[in-house]
Amino acid sequence: MRAKAETYFPDGHSLRLACRAGEHASQTSGHALGYVQANLVVVPQAAAFDFLLFCQRNPKPCPLLEVVEAGSLEAVRLAAGSDLSRDLPRYRVFRNGEMVEERTEVASVWRDDFVSFLLGCSFSFEKPLMDAGLEVRNLALGRNVPMYRTGIACRAAGVFSGPLVVSMRPFPPAETIRAAVISSALPQVHGAPVHFGNPDAIGIRDLAVPEYGDAVPIHDGEVPVFWACGVTTQEALLNAKLPLAITHAPGHMFVSDLREEALHQFNESVW
Amino acid sequence: MRAKAETYFPDGHSLRLACRAGEHASQTSGHALGYVQANLVVVPQAAAFDFLLFCQRNPKPCPLLEVVEAGSLEAVRLAAGSDLSRDLPRYRVFRNGEMVEERTEVASVWRDDFVSFLLGCSFSFEKPLMDAGLEVRNLALGRNVPMYRTGIACRAAGVFSGPLVVSMRPFPPAETIRAAVISSALPQVHGAPVHFGNPDAIGIRDLAVPEYGDAVPIHDGEVPVFWACGVTTQEALLNAKLPLAITHAPGHMFVSDLREEALHQFNESVW
Repeated sequence: MRAKAETYFPDGHSLRLACRAGEHASQTSGHALGYVQANLVVVPQAAAFDFLLFCQRNPKPCPLLEVVEAGSLEAVRLAAGSDLSRDLPRYRVFRNGEMVEERTEVASVWRDDFVSFLLGCSFSFEKPLMDAGLEVRNLALGRNVPMYRTGIACRAAGVFSGPLVVSMRPFPPAETIRAAVISSALPQVHGAPVHFGNPDAIGIRDLAVPEYGDAVPIHDGEVPVFWACGVTTQEALLNAKLPLAITHAPGHMFVSDLREEALHQFNESVW
Repeated sequence: MRAKAETYFPDGHSLRLACRAGEHASQTSGHALGYVQANLVVVPQAAAFDFLLFCQRNPKPCPLLEVVEAGSLEAVRLAAGSDLSRDLPRYRVFRNGEMVEERTEVASVWRDDFVSFLLGCSFSFEKPLMDAGLEVRNLALGRNVPMYRTGIACRAAGVFSGPLVVSMRPFPPAETIRAAVISSALPQVHGAPVHFGNPDAIGIRDLAVPEYGDAVPIHDGEVPVFWACGVTTQEALLNAKLPLAITHAPGHMFVSDLREEALHQFNESVW
């Protein structure tokens, strides 16, 4: 018996419909190239002000793209007609600060008081780096990007607090500068780096042992460059110990209808 | 009897202390030059999520600088040691969507469930325009900037909705472009213009009759240039008909300790 070749979904719409029909439950990386993918965080209304404020206070790790209010499942701006409870390939359910299960839909556990937050994802800035001729090490090696818990505290908001988590990509100095300039133009997906060089300066002990993702080699003449990372929200969510919360499963993102080229002006205007 | 010459307050701290002592109750324009001034909106906790979301969805008219949670009166980031209930020269109190009084302090009507929002103000982008050699007509004439209600609807959030309000400054085409480039670098104070030229295209009937502020002449060869304006929040606040809400009185702003030069990176990082 041979493995069935996986279908390539060319856009967000077809991928979401496949998830909704139960026909796609694996990672979204490599699908719908050119469309913005987003992190999902769902919390009860009682915690929604605190989480929204946490994002407002920490825009680099938590770049909000869209908030869907209680009573709705549709991200009208990122994807008209979407259903947040069924259109992602895989979800995680948290109770009292512990991940209790992964599911391929959360329609059956959805509550009327759930508020959904969609946040920018680093996939959207890796492509412009590659387009500029930079080698993104984790992609070149087919690995997940290494992510590290830092000693930097986010600004707290109500029940949400925790350390800044960063992702790391190594570059030579001149490319580090180009990467900083390119990513600074995309605040919707973490913006400019927060640090480069000595990991210890931001409380990282050992680059070979990332808290999330996979380590990558750093070649002679390269420096590690650190960007704020959306996993920061997961740490804050664990710390908040909400009775119930939902996120996407790592790598299993919400794929939108928004073109990456349009991201830089998204949320900039209604006009 | 001659009028007492008004004291010039060179920084936010001295101006706030004078307000707190009841020694300054007039406009803040022209004081504390170089320090960021901010709009104040105070709503009960029950409406705070909706207002925060309204700002998130309409960042150009509502550029949030700081949110002060229920139970606190201090804008810790903009001005450590500040007291939002006494440090502005003049406030407006709204009940059920109507302005019922102006006061020089609101400590006596403050409630434990009040959440305070401080928003960027166009004072902070007029100075960079002048520094670049542009004539800002309203300032040159010593008038308030003209502001117009447009036919463009803001994105609604809960009880908050309403039209976009814009301010207008006329410039020749080449200066319009410079003004757009300069202000685009300051999203914390409304960012790039939303329109220039034909007022009717955004639902403005008559430039000679602004809904707020004072009309200014437009010379031959100039075009009217329109920026999103913080008065948008006042329209949304009136529409929301909250039982109780407070704002600064027009022109009587919260003067912070933040230097205008530091504004472009404010909220960009905790690092």
